[in-house]
Amino acid sequence: MTTINTTIDAVTAPDAEARAHDESTTADGRTITAQQLSAGRRAHELDRAHVFHSWQAQGPFDPMTVVAAEGPYIWDGEGRKLLDMSSQLVNANIGHQHPKVVAAIQEQAASLCTIAPQYVNDARSEAARLIAELTPGDLDHVFFTNGGADANEHAIRMARLHTGRTKVLSAYRSYHGGTQLAVNVTGDPRRFANDYSAEGIVHFMPAYQYRSYFGATTEEEETQRALQHLEDMITLEGPSNIAALILETVPGTAGIYAPPAGYLEGVRELTARHGIVFIADEVMAGFGRTGRWFAVDHWDVQPDLLTFAKGVNSGYVPLGGVAISDAIFETFRDRVYPGGLTYSGHPLACAAAVATITAMDEEGMIDNADRLGRDVIGPALEEMAQRHPSIGDVRGMGCFWAIELVKNRATREPLAAYGGSSPEMNRVIAAMKAGGVLPFANFNRIHVVPPLNTPDADVRFGLEVLDDALRIADEYVS
Amino acid sequence: MTTINTTIDAVTAPDAEARAHDESTTADGRTITAQQLSAGRRAHELDRAHVFHSWQAQGPFDPMTVVAAEGPYIWDGEGRKLLDMSSQLVNANIGHQHPKVVAAIQEQAASLCTIAPQYVNDARSEAARLIAELTPGDLDHVFFTNGGADANEHAIRMARLHTGRTKVLSAYRSYHGGTQLAVNVTGDPRRFANDYSAEGIVHFMPAYQYRSYFGATTEEEETQRALQHLEDMITLEGPSNIAALILETVPGTAGIYAPPAGYLEGVRELTARHGIVFIADEVMAGFGRTGRWFAVDHWDVQPDLLTFAKGVNSGYVPLGGVAISDAIFETFRDRVYPGGLTYSGHPLACAAAVATITAMDEEGMIDNADRLGRDVIGPALEEMAQRHPSIGDVRGMGCFWAIELVKNRATREPLAAYGGSSPEMNRVIAAMKAGGVLPFANFNRIHVVPPLNTPDADVRFGLEVLDDALRIADEYVS
Repeated sequence: MTTINTTIDAVTAPDAEARAHDESTTADGRTITAQQLSAGRRAHELDRAHVFHSWQAQGPFDPMTVVAAEGPYIWDGEGRKLLDMSSQLVNANIGHQHPKVVAAIQEQAASLCTIAPQYVNDARSEAARLIAELTPGDLDHVFFTNGGADANEHAIRMARLHTGRTKVLSAYRSYHGGTQLAVNVTGDPRRFANDYSAEGIVHFMPAYQYRSYFGATTEEEETQRALQHLEDMITLEGPSNIAALILETVPGTAGIYAPPAGYLEGVRELTARHGIVFIADEVMAGFGRTGRWFAVDHWDVQPDLLTFAKGVNSGYVPLGGVAISDAIFETFRDRVYPGGLTYSGHPLACAAAVATITAMDEEGMIDNADRLGRDVIGPALEEMAQRHPSIGDVRGMGCFWAIELVKNRATREPLAAYGGSSPEMNRVIAAMKAGGVLPFANFNRIHVVPPLNTPDADVRFGLEVLDDALRIADEYVS
Repeated sequence: MTTINTTIDAVTAPDAEARAHDESTTADGRTITAQQLSAGRRAHELDRAHVFHSWQAQGPFDPMTVVAAEGPYIWDGEGRKLLDMSSQLVNANIGHQHPKVVAAIQEQAASLCTIAPQYVNDARSEAARLIAELTPGDLDHVFFTNGGADANEHAIRMARLHTGRTKVLSAYRSYHGGTQLAVNVTGDPRRFANDYSAEGIVHFMPAYQYRSYFGATTEEEETQRALQHLEDMITLEGPSNIAALILETVPGTAGIYAPPAGYLEGVRELTARHGIVFIADEVMAGFGRTGRWFAVDHWDVQPDLLTFAKGVNSGYVPLGGVAISDAIFETFRDRVYPGGLTYSGHPLACAAAVATITAMDEEGMIDNADRLGRDVIGPALEEMAQRHPSIGDVRGMGCFWAIELVKNRATREPLAAYGGSSPEMNRVIAAMKAGGVLPFANFNRIHVVPPLNTPDADVRFGLEVLDDALRIADEYVS
């Protein structure tokens, strides 16, 4: 038998230096022990030797170590405290280590960690009940997956089988996940290296007012022209060939650009008219991020399928899923649904979802997100835009905001090109980290996406650090 | 704000009947409380109302409720104890609720549930180190996914980018996962309804001696002809177009048919000669199932990529991954790997993997699986084959065995057709359940796949129940 070193103590044992100073106390009084710091250094060495990271060139990558996290804060490998204005990958909607969710995971672990998808399990049933209750209209059936990518893959499969059609329309400037089909419906540069096997995927231009693809100058014009474009695409691709239209209700990583008034209603009307399944991707926007349980609630639009992940349990345990309308459920009442996965409806993940949804409800986190957007984040960003000529656009809702940084407000030349980074953006990001904030940045944008229950004072602190860092961006404005 | 009923008590509160008998004690002394049974009934109602199940027609499906699980046993909705000879979906290699793994999950939950993939985390680093140490040769880099399907999807992507080629060869009678690309490389009927977007996927005939596709009558002949077929396929598809060959080292759900002597070595030689990446899918066969850490260890063959899930942490938390050779790692040293996922290297899942691997090692589970196969399961099944004319074939290793049930040993006519079930098989399965065993069945096969640490007496009990049930199968033999 292979002999392996499974001594975990070896990883966490304090080294000589650590023994010298027994613990390190951060400014706010939280103690990061020397042992945690030592374990972090060892973890960094092992990471560089053995961990292959997402979306990276592995060689030059020097990842930050995280040794602890609590509420809206994380602590890095030097014991420094950073405000998590990213909610990680915009998943930790309830912040880090929420005690009620931690306790629920511990209790479920003690009772039943895993069971196959073909059985009934109380955590899975209760999570499905809560999600069915929260999602709009008759989205009363829940297929659980491991994350957002496979949720979108299965939603597309359901739509294809329900309609008997193949084509799928999706928007440019979108993100739908990293598996093959999901990355092919994605409309951002992460798709470029993965353009295999994309039978029937057709991309259309989104309604994106700040850089209108239609030459629109008003919201009304953007809505009207974007809907006309979509209708033209449907006509030219052949309505009877199109199974689904997949759309992030509010596109996330692609730029947090909420649809202009009337757009979603128009998409719903067009898809309904042509028997096209409307899939609302709420992987990032769902579960309170926009100040409503689901982003579609802002427009009172009901999709046929709604996909979720991230916020459903803040990512504490991997979980995603598809909420399914009665009509699509009917298709699979007597016909086998040809899809599945070992961990569908995983009890530990579902128990975390039940506890997360319950905590969000009991602690009023959805209303708090809405209030933070209206009273704190929105006004502060608008005010900054008065003073910082590098801010080209401010947009968002709830705890879901983006600013676009530009070199010139008239030309809207971005501070980093589409699909890339730039030294200028890197300086801004570094300044935010130096100021104690972990930002979410993408191309020429900084996203302000803190946990929904971040205390106002902490949100204000994060905005002040952003305000300071923007002086760097302003240097490049001409 | 939406008002929702998040009162979990409502689900678990004992009903009137339950209050009447405070608890129910099973024959073995374990107590299943009336509250558990009541919660199970409520869970079943909610399941039928809201849970959409994998690979099912949703209407007629009446799933079994599971109210508790421990070691190799589960308890159903009536409080009945069943020996889990399926290890669920052949994932619970260490059995249910292993106390060391439960404790590790609870500890990690208390410390850090989740962190984004771009940071360093000690649970992730340690899991990667252990896996790199256990996998053969220079498979020293680990990309973590949520399960086996996305592990295979990412392995194929790595192979395509590493080689600059598109085609992927995979075997018929295989299973590689439920997402679009994974189900398309799959070679079983679950692919039939999903044949979209399969650019470059080519299936070849596997080495499957019992029903040889090559008219072979000896193991040597099967190996020689299957390798010749594979070489012919490579020649006819164009070696310079083929990125990868993906193969379950020992195919699992498709029939637990280990490769004949010399076959894997031949596959390795052929793929190496043509610069084709050899992906060994060990999602089901890995982590001790065959009596070695990995099934490839039986043949001393080193693949370029090895995919895993299930046994890595027994499915206690969703986790999968790809172990990557140095040569393929080099491709992504300075070039971005264009793939990723929010939960890559999830701390809770990785902590469960560290604890699982440690427990398997400390408790000698790999050797035990090997011994159970050689001394208990194999001999018992061979002996049964002497008495039951319905047994057409017995094959396996470790805790990974299959018997093929036939109506006639000479014609090998299966007791259920490829891709289907039959009333005959359903009677056998029902008899096993009635006898207190949860079996794993597929088409005309019963798989004997208990947890690796199942006590000998329990394994023998399960085999006796199987033995009894086979009298039903014998009735159909002509």
